[in-house]
Amino acid sequence: MPVDILAIAAHRDDVEQTCGGTLLKMAELGHRTGILDLTRGEMGTRGSAEDREREAADAARILRVSWREALDIPDGCVENTWENRLTVAEVIRQTRPRVVILPYWKGRHPDHYTASKLGYEACFLAGLAKLDVSVPRAPSPATEEAAFGRAASAVASVVAGEDRASRQGSGGHGFSHAGNAQTEVAALAAEAGPHRPFKIIYATLYYDVRPTFVVDITDQFEARFESLMAYKSQFSDQQAGKDIFPARSEIRARMESMARFYGMMAGVTYAEPFLQKEVGLVDDVTVIPVKSI
Amino acid sequence: MPVDILAIAAHRDDVEQTCGGTLLKMAELGHRTGILDLTRGEMGTRGSAEDREREAADAARILRVSWREALDIPDGCVENTWENRLTVAEVIRQTRPRVVILPYWKGRHPDHYTASKLGYEACFLAGLAKLDVSVPRAPSPATEEAAFGRAASAVASVVAGEDRASRQGSGGHGFSHAGNAQTEVAALAAEAGPHRPFKIIYATLYYDVRPTFVVDITDQFEARFESLMAYKSQFSDQQAGKDIFPARSEIRARMESMARFYGMMAGVTYAEPFLQKEVGLVDDVTVIPVKSI
Amino acid sequence: MPVDILAIAAHRDDVEQTCGGTLLKMAELGHRTGILDLTRGEMGTRGSAEDREREAADAARILRVSWREALDIPDGCVENTWENRLTVAEVIRQTRPRVVILPYWKGRHPDHYTASKLGYEACFLAGLAKLDVSVPRAPSPATEEAAFGRAASAVASVVAGEDRASRQGSGGHGFSHAGNAQTEVAALAAEAGPHRPFKIIYATLYYDVRPTFVVDITDQFEARFESLMAYKSQFSDQQAGKDIFPARSEIRARMESMARFYGMMAGVTYAEPFLQKEVGLVDDVTVIPVKSI
Amino acid sequence: MPVDILAIAAHRDDVEQTCGGTLLKMAELGHRTGILDLTRGEMGTRGSAEDREREAADAARILRVSWREALDIPDGCVENTWENRLTVAEVIRQTRPRVVILPYWKGRHPDHYTASKLGYEACFLAGLAKLDVSVPRAPSPATEEAAFGRAASAVASVVAGEDRASRQGSGGHGFSHAGNAQTEVAALAAEAGPHRPFKIIYATLYYDVRPTFVVDITDQFEARFESLMAYKSQFSDQQAGKDIFPARSEIRARMESMARFYGMMAGVTYAEPFLQKEVGLVDDVTVIPVKSI
Amino acid sequence: MPVDILAIAAHRDDVEQTCGGTLLKMAELGHRTGILDLTRGEMGTRGSAEDREREAADAARILRVSWREALDIPDGCVENTWENRLTVAEVIRQTRPRVVILPYWKGRHPDHYTASKLGYEACFLAGLAKLDVSVPRAPSPATEEAAFGRAASAVASVVAGEDRASRQGSGGHGFSHAGNAQTEVAALAAEAGPHRPFKIIYATLYYDVRPTFVVDITDQFEARFESLMAYKSQFSDQQAGKDIFPARSEIRARMESMARFYGMMAGVTYAEPFLQKEVGLVDDVTVIPVKSI
Amino acid sequence: MPVDILAIAAHRDDVEQTCGGTLLKMAELGHRTGILDLTRGEMGTRGSAEDREREAADAARILRVSWREALDIPDGCVENTWENRLTVAEVIRQTRPRVVILPYWKGRHPDHYTASKLGYEACFLAGLAKLDVSVPRAPSPATEEAAFGRAASAVASVVAGEDRASRQGSGGHGFSHAGNAQTEVAALAAEAGPHRPFKIIYATLYYDVRPTFVVDITDQFEARFESLMAYKSQFSDQQAGKDIFPARSEIRARMESMARFYGMMAGVTYAEPFLQKEVGLVDDVTVIPVKSI
Repeated sequence: MPVDILAIAAHRDDVEQTCGGTLLKMAELGHRTGILDLTRGEMGTRGSAEDREREAADAARILRVSWREALDIPDGCVENTWENRLTVAEVIRQTRPRVVILPYWKGRHPDHYTASKLGYEACFLAGLAKLDVSVPRAPSPATEEAAFGRAASAVASVVAGEDRASRQGSGGHGFSHAGNAQTEVAALAAEAGPHRPFKIIYATLYYDVRPTFVVDITDQFEARFESLMAYKSQFSDQQAGKDIFPARSEIRARMESMARFYGMMAGVTYAEPFLQKEVGLVDDVTVIPVKSI
Repeated sequence: MPVDILAIAAHRDDVEQTCGGTLLKMAELGHRTGILDLTRGEMGTRGSAEDREREAADAARILRVSWREALDIPDGCVENTWENRLTVAEVIRQTRPRVVILPYWKGRHPDHYTASKLGYEACFLAGLAKLDVSVPRAPSPATEEAAFGRAASAVASVVAGEDRASRQGSGGHGFSHAGNAQTEVAALAAEAGPHRPFKIIYATLYYDVRPTFVVDITDQFEARFESLMAYKSQFSDQQAGKDIFPARSEIRARMESMARFYGMMAGVTYAEPFLQKEVGLVDDVTVIPVKSI
Repeated sequence: MPVDILAIAAHRDDVEQTCGGTLLKMAELGHRTGILDLTRGEMGTRGSAEDREREAADAARILRVSWREALDIPDGCVENTWENRLTVAEVIRQTRPRVVILPYWKGRHPDHYTASKLGYEACFLAGLAKLDVSVPRAPSPATEEAAFGRAASAVASVVAGEDRASRQGSGGHGFSHAGNAQTEVAALAAEAGPHRPFKIIYATLYYDVRPTFVVDITDQFEARFESLMAYKSQFSDQQAGKDIFPARSEIRARMESMARFYGMMAGVTYAEPFLQKEVGLVDDVTVIPVKSI
Repeated sequence: MPVDILAIAAHRDDVEQTCGGTLLKMAELGHRTGILDLTRGEMGTRGSAEDREREAADAARILRVSWREALDIPDGCVENTWENRLTVAEVIRQTRPRVVILPYWKGRHPDHYTASKLGYEACFLAGLAKLDVSVPRAPSPATEEAAFGRAASAVASVVAGEDRASRQGSGGHGFSHAGNAQTEVAALAAEAGPHRPFKIIYATLYYDVRPTFVVDITDQFEARFESLMAYKSQFSDQQAGKDIFPARSEIRARMESMARFYGMMAGVTYAEPFLQKEVGLVDDVTVIPVKSI
Repeated sequence: MPVDILAIAAHRDDVEQTCGGTLLKMAELGHRTGILDLTRGEMGTRGSAEDREREAADAARILRVSWREALDIPDGCVENTWENRLTVAEVIRQTRPRVVILPYWKGRHPDHYTASKLGYEACFLAGLAKLDVSVPRAPSPATEEAAFGRAASAVASVVAGEDRASRQGSGGHGFSHAGNAQTEVAALAAEAGPHRPFKIIYATLYYDVRPTFVVDITDQFEARFESLMAYKSQFSDQQAGKDIFPARSEIRARMESMARFYGMMAGVTYAEPFLQKEVGLVDDVTVIPVKSI
Repeated sequence: MPVDILAIAAHRDDVEQTCGGTLLKMAELGHRTGILDLTRGEMGTRGSAEDREREAADAARILRVSWREALDIPDGCVENTWENRLTVAEVIRQTRPRVVILPYWKGRHPDHYTASKLGYEACFLAGLAKLDVSVPRAPSPATEEAAFGRAASAVASVVAGEDRASRQGSGGHGFSHAGNAQTEVAALAAEAGPHRPFKIIYATLYYDVRPTFVVDITDQFEARFESLMAYKSQFSDQQAGKDIFPARSEIRARMESMARFYGMMAGVTYAEPFLQKEVGLVDDVTVIPVKSI
């Protein structure tokens, strides 16, 4: 299931809050988009992981996302281990995105900033021609040390021309499926060779850092808000003051003010902010957007 | 003589060294480009201001520049005065560029960083609807204080509907002409209303700051080098070791290494670096250039 | 007319947009507040300086400001000259604020960032015990050079015990009066000795810089919006799309989104952002506001 | 044993050198303070872990600290593992501080900067309602992988309503006790529910970074020096030149000069520097301390 | 085999590209230099680890390096684990460098920035007097947890005076040998006590950060290029356009432009850039190199 | 009176507080040092300009300064005008320093940061071969505009070979003399051709910025303190609490703590901090001072 753009985030509903408008806009432009949630949300105060899965699928439909899955990394414990990197790298090889959207590398929630580093290093590993990224996770628990060992032997097997077979037999893929058949992905996995995204950008909405660029989501703003509201177990049936969750109107006011704030930076109504590490490359200086003065 | 892009620099031959390739590339794309040199180079160790004027015209032809003029601000003494701002603002109103290229606001040479601030503030003034920017400079020397007074009275005359006439009668325009008839500019001046450039970017080639973006000048590199060599009084007839000026081969090696260095940042052969103060605005994240990883 | 807090800004209606809520909140706490507008707004596209004066007085009433005046520095031409510094220093000596609020030292509009530097240096001069800040401006135009000369002679006259008299005779004070009698100020001026504000803070609302602190203006937000709407010649009788000025609803949406954005940083609904250059000093770490995690 | 303020540091005697004056000042204000040392100092060149424990208790008395314990993380090997995070999170749940003081996140000693990250993430975990933080460490050595497994099963047990019982039975708590009975803490642990500190601040004394704020410790300076001198095995019985440890007078001169340096920043005699990541929130701008000019 | 300067890098041929000129220059000054490659390059697209070993030895000869070894950390998987830190610390104790050169702590390749952190922390550990750094790696796989345990027991054995013997018996050293006899190193290891480098500097050639200082390699540039070309399996027998590897002339052009770019910063022809975290210490301000203006 | 090092500062006694130890150390190394005070201190609260002149000469003797003069720029009104730049440039041509020490370009006192910019631009102008820097100041007051005119004509006269004579006849030099005969300087002036310092460094003692390097002044600290105490009218005959000036012991404590703070950064007892804008150039990495770890 190849996609053009893959957003990787720590928790279901993170993407809806940071770059959901951008994903929808890209889908409207004809690109295939995907979301990889690293955890399943079992640490959330309200609702079960199963509720979240159903809601995540609803949100994906609203944002016209072509592919969405969740890994089973423990919620609240996203770690940048070799094993997790291999798991994410495998998803990248299967989905083969040109652009990967990661959370910003700083943040309040450790899962968020760790997801950023984990995602980056997985993008790197996914492009190593000689690396076998398939990880047998269950039933035998693999220690990090064991993963090291396997990496070395995987390399050895590559040299011996054995890696294809061992990869096909690796079985479980460490992520659940939101509307996609296991068999399809397994078949794809068998063919997934090395792949490195061309571009990695960082969604910065929840951190007060100046963005490199913003994406105008004026026409996508309402749908993005609805995609967040699809997480009914989190947001829908509560009232302000009664709970630690703010009411729907308060959430909307906050989301609107942030989108507008970043929109004002670029002279549009609503926008989502991003960072990239590379310099830009401009072909025609007369068409650079955003007024200077 | 309207242009699409106007590069403002302190000295003749500055533009050739910082953004000449970009100007040529823009001309090749069909845009009209212009250069405003604030001084005439009388402080240069070699050659006269007249030599420089002829050489500047030659360089302009190589870079396919449509319009080039030099003000008579004293070389080595570019000041951000009200009078100088009005003079530059007048040029901006006459040439009406969409993009203005300024030197970076830091630098070794005071003329360079002052030109940056002067150029920025002139862009601002040029857009004030009620401001009369025409400045009678010669023969009566105008003190800065007098300029203040005139500004106030100009405002008054605008309110009374008198400004058009007084502006037409203002005479000298404070800049010399490289291939353009005085009368043409004077006629234009009569019609030049408020104008503010949409975009201001800063050429940073001679400062070790990370650029916001670069422009690929691989195809323009040779011509840009020749445009600099057109300053024969500066560069042509000397030998290394005999002079404070480096030999042609040394200049070329330096220019090439800088262009290549910035090119490598963006995956192209040669490039020129720029800074912008605004955030970017991206329509389609799948077409952002420059590889991340 | 001493005040506790003096906000200095380039243009009438600047303060309403950057720190009006804070000024009102301080007045509600029982502090006396003041506003010094450096210019009178004659460059504005709509309305006259007289319209602006009346509107500024209305806005001042809404914000419960005790003192508001406007200098006659030309609009669009705020310069950090010795003369302007002396004029502002004189206001500081007369109003004797403990806190001065200045615009941020970077910005789009040259008047804004120059007002910041001018205001800072005026605060410094106002505290020099031996400096006579009274400036005879009209009718004889004083050049900057003459101002230098006077400064030196003023110093001499101080040494000779003559300064009090010459200062009393200096006449005009370089600012107009919004609801305050000339005589009162003149009398005050005669007694105004050296004064340096204890604290200088910078209002940063229109610049994307991370603030040092914000002030909660949740309860003042509506009044602040009304104070801006008091500038009827600018904002009231127009419709979006017809004009370069946005409609009232658009202005409100922008103002609300910015105030909410900075409020979210500190866990309150609406806030205004400020910068200070000094480190903070905390007495009790258990009462530092704003949640960390 | 709940405290208002908990300082977490890598080594015994770290807190005495970075924020001991602040802890004492807070105790004098009536707050309960605590210190968690992550290691027991067995890598120190002089003295045993037992010496350090006794000295740490003496220092705690001088600083009027209500609670002090040391974990048994190996000295020189503080790692930000899941297991260590759980252990520290358990302490946070038991001590329930409003403010946590961490080392700065940069530094010369890896234990220091790792303690900063470990402490932050432990604060985060301590607030997750569904997370069981109790870790069975001895006698069976738990690998990181096993800790992952437990986290998942802990979550499962929470869903099944079983977590309270299993937590009570977890036994050892991974830290030694300086003057507090094991039983008391064990009893407390049984009741310790989720808790997240309101504020996290970073002590920056040994890093040349500009602090966000300082705390005036003029009246606590002498006691703080004595608290450091309580580490007799480290500091007392040696002479300068004979040892890698500087003499008492040299230590005092250094400590005094640093405290004075940061004091001068805020206009007081002695101070300790801190960083916070959040913006400030000011109620009354007339009472912001520290002179600007 | 003590050295004066030890460069630590993730991959064979990294040092050749970042600080090879500096290493050669130091050798020409009479210093002994060494290179520790953390991996053996088995992930490289072309050539085997054996090819790399032979090529690395050739490059070392060209750069007059006295000592070069490669650890067997898996290529693409350099992790900052306790075990890896101990292994590198052991090398530092054996080679006893005054200066360690590390990669910059940011970068595109995770192995590079992780090598930087790993190298730093190994330098720290190598200086802990009570720490036994010898690690039994094969045949029994040591988990990180086991390493923790060993560290604690190592400490215990130090106290009991037993560490010297157990260290001698530790056997394998976790690195391969490029031209040095195993026995010599083993003998040395027996005597290697605690050692901490005086200076750690960071080679920044592949990252667009402003260096703290550069080293003039004008006279070493050609040899450095040849040392890179010694990696024949990577660079020699290919043509541009046919491969992902650029042709020799392209590599040379890039290397030259970078060396020249940094050279121009300091007024020399070719240079390599470095960062240090400490402030400088200047004895005589009249001999500070690099022209200011 | 050529010097090797020239320190330029706004006020008498500034140099004593920021880089006096460095100046003395350089004198002890055999270099000739000089001080240019831009103002004469007439704004000081205590003592007259004459008192200051005598005290400055005493301080200069203590610091073994070879040359010290004061310009007559008004105290509290140091402006970066063309005229002031020419005056300072003339001093630079006469004293021909290799190193110029300027105040840091940020600061609390406007005279300090303006002196920094003025000094930098004067260094630049002093090196322009065609520029005549001699300024006729008294008796006819020269406006800035007139200075512009003169610059242009000076250039013309240079071209015509007339500049030498006109420069000799220029008379007053705009600075007073502390122990040097007017005639000597005048004679020197006649020969003073273009000169640009090789190095410009910035003394940062009174600003909390991280220095590029420090200079060890352990052996010069006492003399530096005495040089400040030479300003008896400022510091000697007062008592703490009675005055805005702190007592001698308090001054010493502050000066000591700052010198020690910067000393600790580099492992020495006392030091003075400096900034340079250029990168460093290191010949031998084994002799870079200041321990890393």
